[in-house]
Amino acid sequence: MRGSITILGTSSAAPTKDRFHSGQYFTFLRDVVLIDCGEGTQYRLLQYGLNYQKINHIFISHLHGDHYLGLPGLINTMALNSRSKPLTVYGPSGLSTILDAHFSSGKSHLSFDLTVKELQAGERIELKSMTCEVVQLEHRIPCYGFRFVQNQSDRKLNITRCEELNIPISAYSRLKEGADYSDEHRQIGNAELTFPSGKPFSYGYMTDTRYLPELSEVFAETDVLYHEATYLSTLIDRAEATFHSTAQQAGKFARLSAVNQLIIGHFSSRYDDLKPLLEEARSEFPNTELAVEAKTFEIS
Amino acid sequence: MRGSITILGTSSAAPTKDRFHSGQYFTFLRDVVLIDCGEGTQYRLLQYGLNYQKINHIFISHLHGDHYLGLPGLINTMALNSRSKPLTVYGPSGLSTILDAHFSSGKSHLSFDLTVKELQAGERIELKSMTCEVVQLEHRIPCYGFRFVQNQSDRKLNITRCEELNIPISAYSRLKEGADYSDEHRQIGNAELTFPSGKPFSYGYMTDTRYLPELSEVFAETDVLYHEATYLSTLIDRAEATFHSTAQQAGKFARLSAVNQLIIGHFSSRYDDLKPLLEEARSEFPNTELAVEAKTFEIS
Repeated sequence: MRGSITILGTSSAAPTKDRFHSGQYFTFLRDVVLIDCGEGTQYRLLQYGLNYQKINHIFISHLHGDHYLGLPGLINTMALNSRSKPLTVYGPSGLSTILDAHFSSGKSHLSFDLTVKELQAGERIELKSMTCEVVQLEHRIPCYGFRFVQNQSDRKLNITRCEELNIPISAYSRLKEGADYSDEHRQIGNAELTFPSGKPFSYGYMTDTRYLPELSEVFAETDVLYHEATYLSTLIDRAEATFHSTAQQAGKFARLSAVNQLIIGHFSSRYDDLKPLLEEARSEFPNTELAVEAKTFEIS
Repeated sequence: MRGSITILGTSSAAPTKDRFHSGQYFTFLRDVVLIDCGEGTQYRLLQYGLNYQKINHIFISHLHGDHYLGLPGLINTMALNSRSKPLTVYGPSGLSTILDAHFSSGKSHLSFDLTVKELQAGERIELKSMTCEVVQLEHRIPCYGFRFVQNQSDRKLNITRCEELNIPISAYSRLKEGADYSDEHRQIGNAELTFPSGKPFSYGYMTDTRYLPELSEVFAETDVLYHEATYLSTLIDRAEATFHSTAQQAGKFARLSAVNQLIIGHFSSRYDDLKPLLEEARSEFPNTELAVEAKTFEIS
């Protein structure tokens, strides 16, 4: 398994008894990423047995409370538990001001280097195993979507051939990155020792946003797409007025983008039963699943 | 039952899987008060079936994240659910700046009047049925304790006598406030229709603080006292260095103050089993109980 996406919260705006605010713990190869960090994210990470100290990068889509209010507490707790590893938080303009207000009032001294970077639409952020493309969404306030794409350089080892040629295991990671092999006796081209990596894995994250079919090319053929589905189509007027999407629009977007799998989330607290939202999205795009607290989607 | 105190969180600093950050939902006669508002307080209120829209006053002891990080989210949710009733938040200097940073970034428009007032040691804040005395504690940053005292004016009705004299029910609330009764035919003194109210109920709240025996007079004969007990006595050096108290010190303080009942809370996440903390406090003050998430202490 190369990674996984664990859902920490699925509720838009006001939470319910069982549905919490947005957050996803996304691991892929050498990256551990938290996407959005609603209130209580640190509790969820503890309760679901996810190691928050492994998180290297946090991405905050926008500055509505349900997407970032867990951030100061999570950072505090990382420091209280003696984190030394640096952490980078990417978020909209204004996030630094908020964090500074918290940390200066509490006279908190962090045990690790915290870098807060302002997101810019169109930029590409290099992680270890992936690159994150930052996409402008349309919401009441500035809001960003993310498309994480596996770095092309990861090739698959041809283990049989490597063993036949007695290639030392210590050379494997460089081979996967595309390098040729050489030692004092020989030089072997990368193509003989590896297979092409195939299509690089990609994960798209779109919340909160009005329906934006014009972005379908940006997210074209994404493997897994998370798209908000705050309302049923019966409330399409409300969706438009509040810059949110319906489940049907999420399904339409997945179809237009020809993604492989769609996950819908960010449900209005008015819906006790989420099945109608799932059915509506599936009417447009059958390979749709509901985001549910604690559910993990594995990336094989 | 005149009121109750429901524990929303008991964990100091870093939370555990089962213990959340500080918060108490305190009702007494016509007052509904939230004391401290750690991250996730709005989830607890929902899960424990407590109506957050009934809260009139919120008191924040100090600006460490574990005592206030739930506040912006709770206020957001009150507004999202169309609250119209005003809310007053009392907290240390700096709280307004933090809340302003949140609400300006999110472009939130509250549906109700929110007033944030800066606490001053020694002041008395008039609620409906109680007065809150604000007490300076000693912690790493400015921190306040609270002593809520029932307003003396509440007398008990002598129902038998009221019925004998055909006093209309509509007059009862004024009688309880100490007024005499009069109608066009007669004038009856309050003393004939009511009993003295007895000792006014009082509730003390002391967290976070180093051990402050010099405050025992301020909290003398308090009915119920919540006192932090972050550590066992084995860690008294750490308690002193971090401006916290041990369970034994909490018990000592209760004994010195001659309170009726002690509740201890704000436990370090290092303790899985809280019994040793309870035993230590009881060795000084037998009528001690543990604060536990969702537990309600009734005020008869």
